[in-house]
Amino acid sequence: MGIVLGPNRYGKAEVRLVHVERGAERHRVTDLTVGIALSGELTETHLTGDNSRVLPTDSQKNTVYAFAREFGVGTPETFALRLARHFTDTVEAVRQARVSVEQHAWQRTGGRPHSFSRAGGEARTATVTCRREPGGPPAAWTVSGLSGLTVLNTSGSEFRGFPRDRYTTLAETGDRLLATSVDARWRHTATEPDPDAAPDWDASHTAARELLLAAFADTYSRSLQQTLYAMGQTLLRERPELAEVRLSLPNRHHFLVDLDPFGLDNPGEVFYAADRPYGLIEGTVLRDELPTVDFCW
Amino acid sequence: MGIVLGPNRYGKAEVRLVHVERGAERHRVTDLTVGIALSGELTETHLTGDNSRVLPTDSQKNTVYAFAREFGVGTPETFALRLARHFTDTVEAVRQARVSVEQHAWQRTGGRPHSFSRAGGEARTATVTCRREPGGPPAAWTVSGLSGLTVLNTSGSEFRGFPRDRYTTLAETGDRLLATSVDARWRHTATEPDPDAAPDWDASHTAARELLLAAFADTYSRSLQQTLYAMGQTLLRERPELAEVRLSLPNRHHFLVDLDPFGLDNPGEVFYAADRPYGLIEGTVLRDELPTVDFCW
Amino acid sequence: MGIVLGPNRYGKAEVRLVHVERGAERHRVTDLTVGIALSGELTETHLTGDNSRVLPTDSQKNTVYAFAREFGVGTPETFALRLARHFTDTVEAVRQARVSVEQHAWQRTGGRPHSFSRAGGEARTATVTCRREPGGPPAAWTVSGLSGLTVLNTSGSEFRGFPRDRYTTLAETGDRLLATSVDARWRHTATEPDPDAAPDWDASHTAARELLLAAFADTYSRSLQQTLYAMGQTLLRERPELAEVRLSLPNRHHFLVDLDPFGLDNPGEVFYAADRPYGLIEGTVLRDELPTVDFCW
Amino acid sequence: MGIVLGPNRYGKAEVRLVHVERGAERHRVTDLTVGIALSGELTETHLTGDNSRVLPTDSQKNTVYAFAREFGVGTPETFALRLARHFTDTVEAVRQARVSVEQHAWQRTGGRPHSFSRAGGEARTATVTCRREPGGPPAAWTVSGLSGLTVLNTSGSEFRGFPRDRYTTLAETGDRLLATSVDARWRHTATEPDPDAAPDWDASHTAARELLLAAFADTYSRSLQQTLYAMGQTLLRERPELAEVRLSLPNRHHFLVDLDPFGLDNPGEVFYAADRPYGLIEGTVLRDELPTVDFCW
Repeated sequence: MGIVLGPNRYGKAEVRLVHVERGAERHRVTDLTVGIALSGELTETHLTGDNSRVLPTDSQKNTVYAFAREFGVGTPETFALRLARHFTDTVEAVRQARVSVEQHAWQRTGGRPHSFSRAGGEARTATVTCRREPGGPPAAWTVSGLSGLTVLNTSGSEFRGFPRDRYTTLAETGDRLLATSVDARWRHTATEPDPDAAPDWDASHTAARELLLAAFADTYSRSLQQTLYAMGQTLLRERPELAEVRLSLPNRHHFLVDLDPFGLDNPGEVFYAADRPYGLIEGTVLRDELPTVDFCW
Repeated sequence: MGIVLGPNRYGKAEVRLVHVERGAERHRVTDLTVGIALSGELTETHLTGDNSRVLPTDSQKNTVYAFAREFGVGTPETFALRLARHFTDTVEAVRQARVSVEQHAWQRTGGRPHSFSRAGGEARTATVTCRREPGGPPAAWTVSGLSGLTVLNTSGSEFRGFPRDRYTTLAETGDRLLATSVDARWRHTATEPDPDAAPDWDASHTAARELLLAAFADTYSRSLQQTLYAMGQTLLRERPELAEVRLSLPNRHHFLVDLDPFGLDNPGEVFYAADRPYGLIEGTVLRDELPTVDFCW
Repeated sequence: MGIVLGPNRYGKAEVRLVHVERGAERHRVTDLTVGIALSGELTETHLTGDNSRVLPTDSQKNTVYAFAREFGVGTPETFALRLARHFTDTVEAVRQARVSVEQHAWQRTGGRPHSFSRAGGEARTATVTCRREPGGPPAAWTVSGLSGLTVLNTSGSEFRGFPRDRYTTLAETGDRLLATSVDARWRHTATEPDPDAAPDWDASHTAARELLLAAFADTYSRSLQQTLYAMGQTLLRERPELAEVRLSLPNRHHFLVDLDPFGLDNPGEVFYAADRPYGLIEGTVLRDELPTVDFCW
Repeated sequence: MGIVLGPNRYGKAEVRLVHVERGAERHRVTDLTVGIALSGELTETHLTGDNSRVLPTDSQKNTVYAFAREFGVGTPETFALRLARHFTDTVEAVRQARVSVEQHAWQRTGGRPHSFSRAGGEARTATVTCRREPGGPPAAWTVSGLSGLTVLNTSGSEFRGFPRDRYTTLAETGDRLLATSVDARWRHTATEPDPDAAPDWDASHTAARELLLAAFADTYSRSLQQTLYAMGQTLLRERPELAEVRLSLPNRHHFLVDLDPFGLDNPGEVFYAADRPYGLIEGTVLRDELPTVDFCW
């Protein structure tokens, strides 16, 4: 009849893991949400319900917890790679394992060794996609990132010179508030599949985050698109280990309130922060000499 | 330096529109959330901040409201197509316009002509992607769908015969609760770009929804993957106007509570509904004689 | 030093229970979220950490699941009362047990005996507060209700004649959309503490819901306050078993979009549904001959 | 028929205000969500729809924005008091105005004068309730607080010695993770109604927050109830300006994962962070020589 199974994957989503490293003097807390998606030779289960190649998602969840004990957690990138390698190496049907990690930050309470508070809504993210053909070597693509980093410039942003059609009422502005919640992901060039040969993921992430913050803050913005490109460009220029950056930037509109009816001026002081609708600017910045990779984001 | 702009798009997201059609005797309410994403020749705004080709997202929002008055709303598919055509036809830089619509259902209160109540968490969705090269003809791909349809079978579901590794503790079961929240989208074969030549989208959607519900309910399930395939297969078999179905089915686990410690048995009666983690099964069903289309989902 | 412990309570919140009644021909699904709050002679645990009177919240959760098996679930009111009685009767320190239940509705899929779909965002609620002094008889106050019932009138609502101060810019309107998400609770007069002597809670709830819907739909509204009072008044007038009604009605603003700039009129047809801010109208309707009861809401 | 209107109030909820103070060298951002609830002689609007005493909630919203320009924002307490005084002083029907403010924190990006990032999920809160009888003097009750402060101790928490009933399966533990999301509010003794005579609210809030954090971290916890009392007691002992503290502490369970089936021990290292259900501990700590005030929370 010509009806067939197309691309598919399955796994356990949102596994909540809190790991405590109990050093002699101080504890260290790592708080992760882990998602796993496996794909490969899974046609039979779809067509006939034969589960002989379907490693239960419950086992995948158990593996997350067991690996945290066996190997520790380390960085999100290393932990994701270790899990992804495990599934491609040991589960017969699996040709691709994708492991996504969100890390939620905690900070010490007043320098105490055993007490912590959550450090806000931002998450550090890592997605590792490991591929292996039967008998072939594995390769692993690593995408690091962050989400929920909300930033605001009170100066240095305009929006002018845009075309006007029948439905345009927006006034040009030479000075507006610019706010967004940064969702950024960046792909590392290396496809090293050995979790123990890992580079300094923490240093790379800290630097990338600082570069994004600085580029947002220091770019004189004629549009959020321009700011987006500046953020991606800065990241690639300064971090040679990176191949490509993808950014999704909602324009969190702050509208100047019209206080005229109350006999008041409003020199850029009082704003209404709107929820919906919002502008949404999405874009990619990459190195033109490198091949693109679409399956790893 | 080799750093360049890659794929990008921008637009207004989550435009909330409620449209009232005031018939002589009865009113009709249509409640939509609309998102727009435009792409095309937008490199300049990213690189230099030149906005001369950037139709403001505010104008896009205005267009949604104005079109609701000028043309009415009709079906989500027709409304999305009309908007997408407008942007590809009239905005110079635009090569592709993607308009996504979520429709939230209301039902009449006791048959009254002017009073309504919201009909639950499910949304009907439509995404239309319109493309046009300069001087060329437009084409439009339509993806219909639904999200948030939560379903549950209390019988006819097992999960057995899966492989066991070192981390497998799950017991096989011949009778479990199977619950999921259906997120389904299906692509129509036709790429007709004229909104006024539209087929009967409402009839197509009603039938598709019924088929999905029936396939979920009536498939004896050896795995959620098998149920997923049955749902997609049924849709394509019964609806010749469709080319491809994509389904995302979270396995909303309901765990049988162990009442043994309290001296009680539990013959499939008392369950704990878990939030996280959950299994996530994603798959595509398509016709093998038709080309796939990746950009329209 | 004069610092003392004031009112306090503790318990398990958001226990998720799905109960399947496996009749010979058809199954029946009951889906509840249960919360428990106990109070009584709990000063020692606060001051010294002596837990000898602190029944663990884990045991409370277990009791929910065990009772579902031992007694079935029945109505939310009966189930809440049975649990509340149990805690006041059997836990030494407890003087008051408050059990809150939210019921999430499921409907059969096309009349099938074992397949269901979630019936929307509305919840039926019940809160039972049981009190007992040592050696004294128990008494139980029952508050039934609903939440998340979103309703809309497209006709029959005005807002005029309000005072204007320096900060008033709102225009009077003789015809507006009126929408709200009803959160309503009503207290039953009876304080019967025997769960097996229960009245027909289902019939009472069905009738109350219909009365609220009808009162909202059929009241010509000069303000949402007036509609609120009409809803409460109708409920008390028609249901003699009820003593008091409390309503919380957010005014879900639907603003008429100004289409003038586009050369279009807007005769009550195109609206923007706003998220925030919103008006919030809260009020109580009661019988003046009955004493009020504040602790049971 | 004996059906009457009971307690009621109305107002605008969730007014989103972002205020920028444009100093010569640095900007300062204040981000607030404001809610207003007015009560008084409002029977007529409920019973007859006479709106002559109903100041529109739209005017209340306008007042928030206008006051931000006229008086600046300052602390949440001062801003709330200024608004509450305004409504009790100028709106004829109003006997009580309650203004609630949530403040969302922003921090400077690398010390820059015009660039900021959101500082996490915690909010500082203030609720001011102003009352005035016709011809009488106003009085204002101020409740300060915080919400969403998530804290975790990896040591120094046990839970033992609790009673065991038929439904108790929980094991005693001498060393558990203790985590909660603090929702704390504290009432100031003074009822000074003059916003310009305000005490140093910022200093008081900073100190209170530090005391709560320290009490949570430094109390050896035999139960969360004991920790709650320690937090409230510390606050009252150290801050003479406060009369009463109310705390709501969800017990964010972190369950030690059983790694036995995988041949691994788990010495307090690997935890599953559960969403639901959760324990909920609520309590009040107060000075016994002072009268309680119930309407201001």
